Order: sequence, then structure tokens, then C-alpha cells
Amino acid sequence: MKARVVVMLKDGVLDPQGEAVRHALGSLGFDGVNGVRQGKLIELELAETDPAAAEAQLRDMCEKLLANTVIESYRIELQP
Amino acid sequence: MKARVVVMLKDGVLDPQGEAVRHALGSLGFDGVNGVRQGKLIELELAETDPAAAEAQLRDMCEKLLANTVIESYRIELQP
Repeated sequence: MKARVVVMLKDGVLDPQGEAVRHALGSLGFDGVNGVRQGKLIELELAETDPAAAEAQLRDMCEKLLANTVIESYRIELQP
Repeated sequence: MKARVVVMLKDGVLDPQGEAVRHALGSLGFDGVNGVRQGKLIELELAETDPAAAEAQLRDMCEKLLANTVIESYRIELQP
């Protein structure tokens, strides 16, 4: 089963990487970019075939490794 | 208008970051993780309101800054 995990900085947490991209876009002449936030997308190929079990396993992975839950939020998307 | 840009390494390009995550998950006792690839997710808030114009602008941003098209592929998702 394929799954995607999206990890973004929580709202209110300063995102210097996103700010750098916004600034660079402005320097390149792209106007009208009001905000940029950059996060991680992790695509996993799991042996688990049961969606509920896969989601529980992914949640566990996020809590333990993939996201720093103090400053980051994560979202799990299972692909059939 | 909000938009998301997903930038991933192309298939066939070695992804050391993804491999490191896969290895770390194995060390933590997560079995059955057959493959991991890690990419970037960039969320942008654009002043542009026309979807076609916004997509053209985003494509231009990807070609010029957001993605290294030699080794990375990108996908644009507009959010209504």
C-alpha cells in the first residue's frame, strides 16, 4: 500500500525556508506572492494492506520519527 | 488563490534522504517499509485569481526556481 505523509510547520511557527523562497521569487520578478510555506512530503511503500492498520502504523511513525510534533503538524494520505 | 507545488526526485534518481528515513524506520522496529522517497511541498498564497494564469505563473516559478528539472519533477495543485 502506498501512502503519503505531509509534514508542515504549524501555523505561527516562523518558516525561514518559506520566507527565503518568497524573497527569491520576488527577486525573480514574480509579483503577488503573499505567502510561502515549505514542508516535507514523504512517500512510503508499505507491506501492510489493511488501511486502518497502515494508518495506525503511519501515525506511530510520524510521532516517533517523521514529524517534530512540538512545531510541526502532519497529515496522512493513504493511496488505494 | 492558494496553490501547492510538490517537488520530488525523478524515478531512477538516488534519494539518500528517503533511504535514511527508511533505514531509521527499520531501526525503530517498523517492518514492512519497502521504499521511502522524500520531496518538498511548497504552499503558496497568490494574488492572482484566474486559475489558468496562476498555473502558468506557477509553472514558470518551478522552471526557474522551485525545481531542478534535471533531476526533479514537479506537480502543481490549485486550491479553489
